Amino acid sequence: MKAANFYGAKDIRIEETAVPLLDSGMVKIKVAFAGICGSDMHEYLAGAYPFRTHSVWGHEFSGTVVEVGEGVSKVTVGDRVAVEPLTPCGKCTNCKRGYFNICKLGGSYGYTKSGGFAEFAVVNQENVYLLPDQMSLELGALVEPTSVAVHAVRTSQLRLGDTAAIFGAGPIGLLVLQAVKAAGASEIFVVEVSDERRKKALELGATYVLNPMEEDVRSIILDNTEGGVDVAYDAAGVEATFTTGIASIRPGGEFKIVSVWEKPVSFSPNLIVSPEVKVSGSFAYNNLFPEVIRLLARGVINGNAVITSKIALDDLVTEGLERLTNDRSQCKILVEMTND
Amino acid sequence: MKAANFYGAKDIRIEETAVPLLDSGMVKIKVAFAGICGSDMHEYLAGAYPFRTHSVWGHEFSGTVVEVGEGVSKVTVGDRVAVEPLTPCGKCTNCKRGYFNICKLGGSYGYTKSGGFAEFAVVNQENVYLLPDQMSLELGALVEPTSVAVHAVRTSQLRLGDTAAIFGAGPIGLLVLQAVKAAGASEIFVVEVSDERRKKALELGATYVLNPMEEDVRSIILDNTEGGVDVAYDAAGVEATFTTGIASIRPGGEFKIVSVWEKPVSFSPNLIVSPEVKVSGSFAYNNLFPEVIRLLARGVINGNAVITSKIALDDLVTEGLERLTNDRSQCKILVEMTND
Repeated sequence: MKAANFYGAKDIRIEETAVPLLDSGMVKIKVAFAGICGSDMHEYLAGAYPFRTHSVWGHEFSGTVVEVGEGVSKVTVGDRVAVEPLTPCGKCTNCKRGYFNICKLGGSYGYTKSGGFAEFAVVNQENVYLLPDQMSLELGALVEPTSVAVHAVRTSQLRLGDTAAIFGAGPIGLLVLQAVKAAGASEIFVVEVSDERRKKALELGATYVLNPMEEDVRSIILDNTEGGVDVAYDAAGVEATFTTGIASIRPGGEFKIVSVWEKPVSFSPNLIVSPEVKVSGSFAYNNLFPEVIRLLARGVINGNAVITSKIALDDLVTEGLERLTNDRSQCKILVEMTND
Repeated sequence: MKAANFYGAKDIRIEETAVPLLDSGMVKIKVAFAGICGSDMHEYLAGAYPFRTHSVWGHEFSGTVVEVGEGVSKVTVGDRVAVEPLTPCGKCTNCKRGYFNICKLGGSYGYTKSGGFAEFAVVNQENVYLLPDQMSLELGALVEPTSVAVHAVRTSQLRLGDTAAIFGAGPIGLLVLQAVKAAGASEIFVVEVSDERRKKALELGATYVLNPMEEDVRSIILDNTEGGVDVAYDAAGVEATFTTGIASIRPGGEFKIVSVWEKPVSFSPNLIVSPEVKVSGSFAYNNLFPEVIRLLARGVINGNAVITSKIALDDLVTEGLERLTNDRSQCKILVEMTND
């Protein structure tokens, strides 16, 4: 089959690759759509994550079941599915505590097993989730990144009526924006340098969009809330948002980090001690695909609004990775495998 | 009256000072004991906090009521009391949300009003708490710092049976140690460079005492827990404890900061994102004097164990502040005002 193989930073090759073996309990999927993730961009620009052991890339994908292994009962041939890529071991300390998302021993399709930038994917039946009839395969490929955003909001202390700020309006930031809106936030500040992304944020429900290069974000947030937002989400991952983010939270509020960081930050812990704020991390998601499929299928979260392009697998580098590197108006780019 | 007045870093003067006016609703106290706090040490070494507006120092004190103003019903002459120094406004956003400890407008005896390193203190009746008969005035002066420790533990996610680590075994660290023990921690690691302080921590219930200059703290903690402690408390306030502390927490665990920081720290937020840990601040305390008086009076927390010296007010600088600067075997030093 044709697949995108990761060889190193800036070295992605679309080449003929073996179709993974269909073992018992497994499902073979003809991939329909596979999204380019911020994590993919990090690997493309900075090199492989230490846990990468398989070259076939891509972990946000949907498709149609074309073959099922022995003992498969969850789906049948012809079913349209979204794939949850995580394969937790279920036995380590983290899994036993319910932290399947940070399993120590498990892996993930697209990292430790053949992924979704390929004509076919073969995954365990527990990793596939049926899409409702009214839900497109495009939205199926968005279940994974939307789960990242929904997990961040669900694990934060945000409550109905609270105020929120989101730093960074890339795909995850825009999905977090929609998730906090769906969760009943009463005021939503989106902080983003790109004009196009601020415009998109406004369309998607931001009540204030702020350009940190031109505006005093902290003052505006403090002036328009009761002393700061209840929760700020970081989907940018740079020191400026960390520092401004913490300073824009009300006493007792939370700074929830969803981003991947390339550099350390410098800050004074006094900034979180005297206002008793908390800084917390959110990583991937934890058994959330059914909830997120409902949110997307019912339009509670508008997945289509973050899709800016659909490209062919052969164009993954030029029309996908390079474009996302240079063009801030791009958000979620899907590789349309069925066209290949 | 004789009182210690703060003029600036390393400039404390014991001098004749006006007794504050006894207004209606207020209580005049002959101070018995006043403790030297870590915050006092910060001001002594680094200069006044920005909110300081009164020169009479000291905010951890106990004494005997010698006069009451009009309308005072809470105590009478002769009562032995501990003084809660915070004077929240009760009207600002923080107060209305219950964060009286971080009131924006209120002040504190010893900072914005005449404090406890003095023969007499005059405070509002709501700031005094009766000591039970069996509780000494020495312990009365410990209610304030013990409240800091108890607040940190109560606002942390520590639950009965959890494991805990405490970084720094000064007065607050040793009180946090006793508080986590009283709250049912099943394993308590204390990390401290001073031999004397580690010895004291062991006496007070630490199950492991670790010297970070000689031992690999993170490995020892990870090897003796299920992948890290549930909660780590920082009572040291330096980058090394911040970094090691975060790395010693289990996924989903908490790093609770009780310390005051003189320098910024540099760290990678990835360290808290992928294990989903949280970093949170604890500041002062919030309506906790009755609880803490019971804990100290009943010996659930052993306040006497942290008192290492009692000195006269005239010796505050030489036998108190300078000794705490240079002698790590000292812990809580009380100024014994009744001897003056």
